[in-house]
Amino acid sequence: MNQEPHIASVFDRDLEAIQAMIMKMGGLVEAAILDSSLALESRDEELADKVRKADAAIDALEEQINTECARVIALRAPTASDLRTVLTVMKIAASLERCGDYAKNLAKRSTVLAQMQPIGGSAGSIRRMAKAVELLLKDALDAYIQRDAVLAAEVRERDREIDQMYNALFREFLTHMMEDPRNITACMHLHFIAKNIERVGDHATGVAEQVIYLVTGALPEEARVKGDITSSIRIEGGK
Amino acid sequence: MNQEPHIASVFDRDLEAIQAMIMKMGGLVEAAILDSSLALESRDEELADKVRKADAAIDALEEQINTECARVIALRAPTASDLRTVLTVMKIAASLERCGDYAKNLAKRSTVLAQMQPIGGSAGSIRRMAKAVELLLKDALDAYIQRDAVLAAEVRERDREIDQMYNALFREFLTHMMEDPRNITACMHLHFIAKNIERVGDHATGVAEQVIYLVTGALPEEARVKGDITSSIRIEGGK
Repeated sequence: MNQEPHIASVFDRDLEAIQAMIMKMGGLVEAAILDSSLALESRDEELADKVRKADAAIDALEEQINTECARVIALRAPTASDLRTVLTVMKIAASLERCGDYAKNLAKRSTVLAQMQPIGGSAGSIRRMAKAVELLLKDALDAYIQRDAVLAAEVRERDREIDQMYNALFREFLTHMMEDPRNITACMHLHFIAKNIERVGDHATGVAEQVIYLVTGALPEEARVKGDITSSIRIEGGK
Repeated sequence: MNQEPHIASVFDRDLEAIQAMIMKMGGLVEAAILDSSLALESRDEELADKVRKADAAIDALEEQINTECARVIALRAPTASDLRTVLTVMKIAASLERCGDYAKNLAKRSTVLAQMQPIGGSAGSIRRMAKAVELLLKDALDAYIQRDAVLAAEVRERDREIDQMYNALFREFLTHMMEDPRNITACMHLHFIAKNIERVGDHATGVAEQVIYLVTGALPEEARVKGDITSSIRIEGGK
């Protein structure tokens, strides 16, 4: 569904510049997610340190985007759909900033985990989950730039797979902890990491929903099925 | 630091109406936090169910506030500090919506935990932490309404106490899990709850920082000291 073509205005040029910043920010966040999960799997403390330091650039970009959006609103006084677009950009920037924080936290925990006994193949599973989430975020941002409601709907759908990966990991960690209490501390960290990656997926879904809203003028009808079911999981162990 | 008094404009009246919605939303979120933690401690499934159902009203208020803010921006084309105020209101509403989600999640988990063996005095500790966080959020919103940068600075300071409460609980849960694997599932839920309450404190701090920004025109100089130190905690157990 394409919008009517219209003559490029100063507003359009402003918006393009802001969107370029969003894509740059998205690229940095995607790299942070991939690198931090790779640092976890390969126990690469240098790479983890790089991710932690790179987060400042992500935060700075959000500030820049917010300032620029406020400037455009004040200067151009956009109405209706143009205003909605600017407000959406600010929401997307806020989401990306949070995702950057999650990657930074993953990097921090990977340094601690590098000192502990590895837990089965869990670091590999987490890296695969991170890769899937990174693709999801990338597609959500592409859907935004191209105003592609079909791709956005697909992103929402695919987030359920991330939720399933998280649910499987959650059960795996519980089992490892019950089998051997020496695994508990490591599993608590790994679980946090998995949950935060799952949250990045939720943010990607949020971006996708904003795209659907921008293109169709309405949020998706059916409330999204909540895929993380662990809040109701009961596993009794130890006896 | 008070702003210069100026003649009440249509913008001021619009803003007052929006701020009334923020306070209403804040009241609902505070009640949800208190009620969900009380439901956890007293194993009151009816109260937990009430909290879960009440979250829809919080979400609806955020939608309403966003719509109203967009309307005000489009209609009044506010500039400089007025625009900053409207954008801040939208950020506060987004924060409150997240906090409402945390309370709803707490309520959900409390229903599951009601079927399990209680863990020491942890439900009581969580309720006290929830009470402290609720006060923090209340003060952050009061600081906003009164544009009180001193109270806002105090909120930032007090969030460290919440972080300390969380750190203490984290260690407590690790110990319970290591002592008896039958505690693991319950502790995983309790730990999630504690972390989410700690995040409500972070949101209160975020609101306080917005207030400082609105009043002084700059975000607090020193980067806030990160009080959750659990990402680097190592406790080796079991042997």
